[in-house]
Amino acid sequence: MKKVALVMGSKNDFASVKPAYDTLVKFGVICVPRVLSAHRTPKQAAEFAASARSEGYGVIIAAAGKAAHLAGVIAGHTTLPVIGIPVLSSTLDGLDSLLSVVQMPSGVPVATVAINGGVNAALLAVEMLAISDETLASKLADYKAGMEKQILADDAAIADLLDAK
Amino acid sequence: MKKVALVMGSKNDFASVKPAYDTLVKFGVICVPRVLSAHRTPKQAAEFAASARSEGYGVIIAAAGKAAHLAGVIAGHTTLPVIGIPVLSSTLDGLDSLLSVVQMPSGVPVATVAINGGVNAALLAVEMLAISDETLASKLADYKAGMEKQILADDAAIADLLDAK
Amino acid sequence: MKKVALVMGSKNDFASVKPAYDTLVKFGVICVPRVLSAHRTPKQAAEFAASARSEGYGVIIAAAGKAAHLAGVIAGHTTLPVIGIPVLSSTLDGLDSLLSVVQMPSGVPVATVAINGGVNAALLAVEMLAISDETLASKLADYKAGMEKQILADDAAIADLLDAK
Amino acid sequence: MKKVALVMGSKNDFASVKPAYDTLVKFGVICVPRVLSAHRTPKQAAEFAASARSEGYGVIIAAAGKAAHLAGVIAGHTTLPVIGIPVLSSTLDGLDSLLSVVQMPSGVPVATVAINGGVNAALLAVEMLAISDETLASKLADYKAGMEKQILADDAAIADLLDAK
Amino acid sequence: MKKVALVMGSKNDFASVKPAYDTLVKFGVICVPRVLSAHRTPKQAAEFAASARSEGYGVIIAAAGKAAHLAGVIAGHTTLPVIGIPVLSSTLDGLDSLLSVVQMPSGVPVATVAINGGVNAALLAVEMLAISDETLASKLADYKAGMEKQILADDAAIADLLDAK
Amino acid sequence: MKKVALVMGSKNDFASVKPAYDTLVKFGVICVPRVLSAHRTPKQAAEFAASARSEGYGVIIAAAGKAAHLAGVIAGHTTLPVIGIPVLSSTLDGLDSLLSVVQMPSGVPVATVAINGGVNAALLAVEMLAISDETLASKLADYKAGMEKQILADDAAIADLLDAK
Amino acid sequence: MKKVALVMGSKNDFASVKPAYDTLVKFGVICVPRVLSAHRTPKQAAEFAASARSEGYGVIIAAAGKAAHLAGVIAGHTTLPVIGIPVLSSTLDGLDSLLSVVQMPSGVPVATVAINGGVNAALLAVEMLAISDETLASKLADYKAGMEKQILADDAAIADLLDAK
Amino acid sequence: MKKVALVMGSKNDFASVKPAYDTLVKFGVICVPRVLSAHRTPKQAAEFAASARSEGYGVIIAAAGKAAHLAGVIAGHTTLPVIGIPVLSSTLDGLDSLLSVVQMPSGVPVATVAINGGVNAALLAVEMLAISDETLASKLADYKAGMEKQILADDAAIADLLDAK
Repeated sequence: MKKVALVMGSKNDFASVKPAYDTLVKFGVICVPRVLSAHRTPKQAAEFAASARSEGYGVIIAAAGKAAHLAGVIAGHTTLPVIGIPVLSSTLDGLDSLLSVVQMPSGVPVATVAINGGVNAALLAVEMLAISDETLASKLADYKAGMEKQILADDAAIADLLDAK
Repeated sequence: MKKVALVMGSKNDFASVKPAYDTLVKFGVICVPRVLSAHRTPKQAAEFAASARSEGYGVIIAAAGKAAHLAGVIAGHTTLPVIGIPVLSSTLDGLDSLLSVVQMPSGVPVATVAINGGVNAALLAVEMLAISDETLASKLADYKAGMEKQILADDAAIADLLDAK
Repeated sequence: MKKVALVMGSKNDFASVKPAYDTLVKFGVICVPRVLSAHRTPKQAAEFAASARSEGYGVIIAAAGKAAHLAGVIAGHTTLPVIGIPVLSSTLDGLDSLLSVVQMPSGVPVATVAINGGVNAALLAVEMLAISDETLASKLADYKAGMEKQILADDAAIADLLDAK
Repeated sequence: MKKVALVMGSKNDFASVKPAYDTLVKFGVICVPRVLSAHRTPKQAAEFAASARSEGYGVIIAAAGKAAHLAGVIAGHTTLPVIGIPVLSSTLDGLDSLLSVVQMPSGVPVATVAINGGVNAALLAVEMLAISDETLASKLADYKAGMEKQILADDAAIADLLDAK
Repeated sequence: MKKVALVMGSKNDFASVKPAYDTLVKFGVICVPRVLSAHRTPKQAAEFAASARSEGYGVIIAAAGKAAHLAGVIAGHTTLPVIGIPVLSSTLDGLDSLLSVVQMPSGVPVATVAINGGVNAALLAVEMLAISDETLASKLADYKAGMEKQILADDAAIADLLDAK
Repeated sequence: MKKVALVMGSKNDFASVKPAYDTLVKFGVICVPRVLSAHRTPKQAAEFAASARSEGYGVIIAAAGKAAHLAGVIAGHTTLPVIGIPVLSSTLDGLDSLLSVVQMPSGVPVATVAINGGVNAALLAVEMLAISDETLASKLADYKAGMEKQILADDAAIADLLDAK
Repeated sequence: MKKVALVMGSKNDFASVKPAYDTLVKFGVICVPRVLSAHRTPKQAAEFAASARSEGYGVIIAAAGKAAHLAGVIAGHTTLPVIGIPVLSSTLDGLDSLLSVVQMPSGVPVATVAINGGVNAALLAVEMLAISDETLASKLADYKAGMEKQILADDAAIADLLDAK
Repeated sequence: MKKVALVMGSKNDFASVKPAYDTLVKFGVICVPRVLSAHRTPKQAAEFAASARSEGYGVIIAAAGKAAHLAGVIAGHTTLPVIGIPVLSSTLDGLDSLLSVVQMPSGVPVATVAINGGVNAALLAVEMLAISDETLASKLADYKAGMEKQILADDAAIADLLDAK
């Protein structure tokens, strides 16, 4: 199975990236975390992206905040699908990160998830790898069933909860 | 090779979806267009999504505007990766569509591209299919080389253009 | 009298839903709380909505956050009026929830109240039931009179309050 | 059957209100159009709202733009459900109208539909009247079936449409 | 000298109104605080506004949050200048309040100050009263001189401050 | 009677300022138009503002777009009330102008009207002059009565209009 | 004198860049236009930026739209000052471009001008070169004097203009 | 070497300005801090700006919040490059400050950095001074190398960090 790279623009993005890491591990996907900056280590970021396919990666997840260029820059150097996590920064409530990641010009897509959407970035990567991988697809179906079960349990408990409080 | 479904919420979204269709055709990917509405034909949308994997689809692209629920609703019924195109509607400049598509709750991701980003939605679908498909990956590399060539040609011509006008 | 369903997309929306529950109880309206997710239990949500009228419901209130599809999805399956509560989530200050709920495409309305507007959602439901119910209408008039009385009392006390502090 | 009042803040809001009027007429609901301004004829607006229930109205729809106070002001004078249509004005893309209508303080709800959502305002009014009116509910079900039929027809035609153009 | 009315839509707006009150008192302007709601005591609000000029008021300041209709509603009933204070509410960072106050339709102006701009609302009221009142104008000039003096003192101290910390 | 200065930051703001001019003329208020720029003729703008009171002005209206500093800069040099008109510019739908005018820091108020709200700026200036001028106040009352009459006429005509079209 | 590079991300940005070109030419500054893309020719963009200082450039201006990464990417490869022009694109009114350019993370600044602010980008470049160049500084002073003269002429003409129309 | 002026509109902006001060000191650039207000000490601000070039300044940094006019006003009085720091204020998340600083009209540029971007303002000032100063340019290259080194160290440590927590 192809590996997933989990790239963050700075160690400060750790909290947004951790849920993605844990989710990938839970699915048994090999996840390689990297700190690479579009602005501070542009050469390393470019080299990583350019060789990622031949290094055995199948998907690259990139998390960055503010004027978040990392996912787009990586996408410029690879034909692998790149997933962008817009990271909530200290001002503008993440809108700057979101627009910087999602509004890519025609020709170079970034698959964008919600602001701080680490879990969803990981699930999306798993879905991509599972297109032709029935075992992984089956794990995703189990995950979905688990979520359904949880909602059903919450549904069963909510009336008592509302009355009690 | 897996098929790509290209779902739009209404015939009005045609203009946003057409570039995606043309791009997929250009890459030789089998693309099946559908009109399915999260609100007007919810049963059909759900059934389509639930059976898409077994019907031979690998990726689903969904385009919708305003309170754009289509991509999210489809994602609730499948473990295939779902790509969302937020469609520019008559008010709010597409911001409503973008947020309705990208801000999915944890557990059910939608891979969101730019507002009216039809070409990028198609390229992203191709990238997903190309993870383990070297022929398709090679076409993507050619596409990237074509874009580079165009920019280089524009670069060579720009000085004259600026002086002339 | 018809019942009111109070549906939330997740147990996390409890705090936004509780004031709606308490208000409905105060008016003597039978309120049935449910946890149903547009994305995690879409089948149950659809089934609930499709049978709500025949089950004796008169109004459905739905609360959800982020890309809040729940109210719209329910509205797709029923001819009962659906009231949407956009729930404040951790980013974007509730704007994503508001636009995802209110900007419904033509044909499938959602009666949207303010972000976290649980009390108003309940009052709106009561107003709907009170269109042809004079007893309930009279309770609403009393509620309005109570608010007026409170403002008048505040008005009488404000000068002293401003001088004191 | 109760009447529906269709109030607009100015003759300029005609274009946003016309689809609501036509939709109500189509459903056989008696619709009384009014021009009443929260700021220019406040007394008349207040008097109208205060006596609407006793005059046989069941629902009031109010359309206004910019700092759109009309729906809220009317809601302050009645216990009938008030539906607000935020009207797109010349600047800010309707965001000012939307927030002025939807963000009502606790105690005085306005059922808000999308910007320029005249058709949905009318449908919502019909849904409210149909809570206990099986004939009207049946017309709504027919309307829903008509929309479904249209989407299915569009679905059948879309493949040819995309290839043709 | 004419009096200034300081109207708030709810006791919750006290914190935004208090600085206005204190500033008016400091300038020796007679300030009458009122709690009047556009939605909960609309009749009292209208009556107050309609008689304010004959009651000896020269300016009305109105503070409200969310869909802040108070200033506009008062302006509909008087020819006195009305100053609006948009109050920061729990969501949307005050943008809803600001747009609801400032975007008044043509014919009925509200003099809007910054979100939570209580001090400036008071100063603006004093400036209006001071148009033809040289004593009050002179107090405003003193106030301006005091601000200048404070900035000059801060300017003198800033270098040490920056080095020290 | 005191004069009103009508200052614009550039001849490009003419269209936003013309309605203010015409309205002031209609009320018989002496209006002196000026083109003064906070950035291009800062000295002249400052000198004008500093001497405006002694030159017989009672109110200053200032219109500017984009990073609209004109009203605030003028307010820094005078104790007269300053009314700001945020002018719609080519991008951002006037939001930049609005925030640059209304969000003044404590101590230096600008009475802000709606984006391109020229008529309301003029009416507000007239209201300020009319605080102690019964003749002018009476003209304002006539203006209000004229608006009311127009709305009542529109109200009488609307039913026919909706049926006809 | 150092040269100025005028880089655009695509030939589509020509209209935003042309005013910058013309302004630089007017000041006698050597301006070299380039088309370089952060995503489509990332290698060329990086190489250009990395060698710009040694090639005799003093300032780099970069114009791009949507998720506008060009200025930031160039800034990552040079110690020259980089000026960013956010280009208005087809949706979101330029807000995406502005935030993508201006919200750079700490360590890698981009000197951002207004959306489509080509003239100002050029003037800013000239100001940078003029820090130690009295001839150029004198041209800037002349330019400022010219603007002042224009405003004064407009000021002299405005009264007639307003009366005439 | 030319000096850098570091102007803040109020002592409250200290926290945003401190990182700029420290960064300039670290580069050995002479930095003169000033408190000058566009609205409260406009004369002093104008005089400072008008004489800054002749006083030996090369760059002026100006920090202000809300309707942040300081940078623009200073830019109106000098031909030196002016760098604007939009300061985060208590409401609107800094958007008001950003737009008030960056959206300058044609003819008077302000080089804008991110909201609260003190470090970047300082680096930008250093870059401007370093255009023709090889020693300073070399310090900037060292700074860039330091950032790269830090990212490389973080990259080396991240895998252990993610596993550990």
